[in-house]
Amino acid sequence: MPVSHPTVYEPLTEQGAISLAVRLGLFPEGTPLACREIGDGNLNLVFRVVDQQTKKGIIVKQALPYAKVVGESWPLTLKRAVIESNALRTFASYVPQYVPKVYYSDESLAITVMEDLSHLQIARKGLIEGKTYPLLSQHIGEFIAKTSFYTSDFGMNQQEKKQLAQSFVNPELCKITEDLVFTDPFFNHETNNFEDELRDDVEALWNDDKLHLEAAKLKRKFLTEGDALIHGDLHTGSIFASDEETKIIDPEFAFYGPFGFDIGQFFANLLLNALSRPEQQQEPLFAHIDKTWDVFSTVFSDLWRTHNVEPYAKTEGLLEDVLHHTFIDAIGFAGCEVIRRTIGLAHVADLDGIEDKEERLQAKRYALRLGRSLILQRETLSSTKEIRSLFAQTVLAATN
Amino acid sequence: MPVSHPTVYEPLTEQGAISLAVRLGLFPEGTPLACREIGDGNLNLVFRVVDQQTKKGIIVKQALPYAKVVGESWPLTLKRAVIESNALRTFASYVPQYVPKVYYSDESLAITVMEDLSHLQIARKGLIEGKTYPLLSQHIGEFIAKTSFYTSDFGMNQQEKKQLAQSFVNPELCKITEDLVFTDPFFNHETNNFEDELRDDVEALWNDDKLHLEAAKLKRKFLTEGDALIHGDLHTGSIFASDEETKIIDPEFAFYGPFGFDIGQFFANLLLNALSRPEQQQEPLFAHIDKTWDVFSTVFSDLWRTHNVEPYAKTEGLLEDVLHHTFIDAIGFAGCEVIRRTIGLAHVADLDGIEDKEERLQAKRYALRLGRSLILQRETLSSTKEIRSLFAQTVLAATN
Repeated sequence: MPVSHPTVYEPLTEQGAISLAVRLGLFPEGTPLACREIGDGNLNLVFRVVDQQTKKGIIVKQALPYAKVVGESWPLTLKRAVIESNALRTFASYVPQYVPKVYYSDESLAITVMEDLSHLQIARKGLIEGKTYPLLSQHIGEFIAKTSFYTSDFGMNQQEKKQLAQSFVNPELCKITEDLVFTDPFFNHETNNFEDELRDDVEALWNDDKLHLEAAKLKRKFLTEGDALIHGDLHTGSIFASDEETKIIDPEFAFYGPFGFDIGQFFANLLLNALSRPEQQQEPLFAHIDKTWDVFSTVFSDLWRTHNVEPYAKTEGLLEDVLHHTFIDAIGFAGCEVIRRTIGLAHVADLDGIEDKEERLQAKRYALRLGRSLILQRETLSSTKEIRSLFAQTVLAATN
Repeated sequence: MPVSHPTVYEPLTEQGAISLAVRLGLFPEGTPLACREIGDGNLNLVFRVVDQQTKKGIIVKQALPYAKVVGESWPLTLKRAVIESNALRTFASYVPQYVPKVYYSDESLAITVMEDLSHLQIARKGLIEGKTYPLLSQHIGEFIAKTSFYTSDFGMNQQEKKQLAQSFVNPELCKITEDLVFTDPFFNHETNNFEDELRDDVEALWNDDKLHLEAAKLKRKFLTEGDALIHGDLHTGSIFASDEETKIIDPEFAFYGPFGFDIGQFFANLLLNALSRPEQQQEPLFAHIDKTWDVFSTVFSDLWRTHNVEPYAKTEGLLEDVLHHTFIDAIGFAGCEVIRRTIGLAHVADLDGIEDKEERLQAKRYALRLGRSLILQRETLSSTKEIRSLFAQTVLAATN
């Protein structure tokens, strides 16, 4: 529908978000609407416009031309709003049940108008509260399997794949990951952020040549391997969940990257939550990791056998080779994410929220050791089940 | 300079090529010009416009909207002319000595006007005549090292690299390689072309599960790994040479691909020529292979140490890891190229030109076995020197 609007970017106000919703006809005429900015991210304004009678709402998300976390000093292209809305639409064509509906997007204003998911909770928040979300890993595994398979050279026309990849070239947001996940935490860099008490542990990482080499190999994969359209930032803060539903949001980091990356980031954030819990409450998180891989590999394998467009599809050993390397990469990427969420620029509330200082520091020391082990031992793990013993060994080694 | 021309594509005539040269002011006014279409490729018209007095000329190359080799039935986008002229210009910014100068390009007419290199000879032709081109491998090694390094995440700003890669997305020409190099020769496909006498050997390849798996892994690298801007078709027919000079032409297949691909194709075409020679004349070709790798790895390593933009540049073992995998991949890609040039759609004159039928068939049988060995044993070779023994074993095994 044609909608008149300013063609030059300006940040929306709450009133502006209401006006947009009205112009778009998303509410019946005369509906009493209220609006609040509810964003807690670093890169965007998020408005919830709600019908005051029915309490039904919509979300208006607008990209900011800078990262809030570092003030206006870190300028960011607004193109990421286009990436986000296009990624949501692409994902919806394969797994509409796992992403919010997009009602409208405007490139010049960097706006995406979409389904309101406020009946759900951000998974990180729920996990910190001790929730387990029984279907979370089933849904995430299926989401990653289907979106990865269908946007890869195995699941879609290989020439169209190249054009889709071209439309998702995303230099600025990739740079954030390249710097903050793969580089800065491994060097003495000004973006790092950690308690003084951790300095010895952190400096040990900075001086760890073996770790540097493996982190560099993983970074190179992120820089060069274009397997599939990935979410690119699939931590538990990018997931809305309830006991029944799971919705993946915020794919502004989406680009063509390695199969294992989303899986690894999800694993890492489950492990970071596990590190914040008493031992006897950790098992549901390990079970989620097992289930994510199990569902991912099962669904991916089924699609491989039934919907594969690659002439080598039936070649014995190829699927196993793809899955094997995806697994190894995922474990390595998980290790990088665990480390960067502990000492890098962007932390997680799972660890930072541990109230007792000694416990918090201990959990972070475990995190650093666990991250290191995941990176260095990624090729020796034969299944996600072994993450439990790696986790236990890390904690044990640290306490002895 | 502004030049008037038709804005709708039509194939040039010899007179049209002369008119264009005149309009572009490439010759002084009143120069008596002659023109001849000299193309022997499958995809383009190539006109040489020459000053009849000085004998100095220029080349006008125009992409055809179809592949000549299969008549008009294989339509091809004209965008490849843009890829070609942009690739030549990009390469020229690093190694101007190894590419023809581009004077002018026109996207809508799919035309590139460039330096005339007719004082040189196509390397394949010279090699078939028994020439050795003493500087060929020195130049090709340096060309690949510099263009690969400077267009990679190690040699250029990593965000600009993504944008450069975006501008070289090249689905149609990549598909030719994906089909004709990596797929069709390994299956019973209608594009294949081989003597009836080879059928047993060819069918053995088609039924070779181990070979299929390794060819599939190499194809996947070509489909997904974007290390650097590569030429994409660097066989000896894409090289003009003399004893002093080397010029690389025809980069219409250029795209962001794996480091090892150009090296592998060049190796393969040297090996195909070696297969066409008596044993005592093969050594210069093996020496070229050694020298190509030696120069490539030396120049690449020097640039790595002096011009590396990646924070992990100084990480011990990373350069060695990159070179190691580039080497393995190059050997594997060489194997695919040797096989496809023997039984696939596009052959090489080195083998097809062997006059004695039995000798020709024998050389082709050796080629198939050599290609298979290169693919299957690529991870066991520790240096190019071992290609000699692999070559000898292949021939030996075949004759016993």
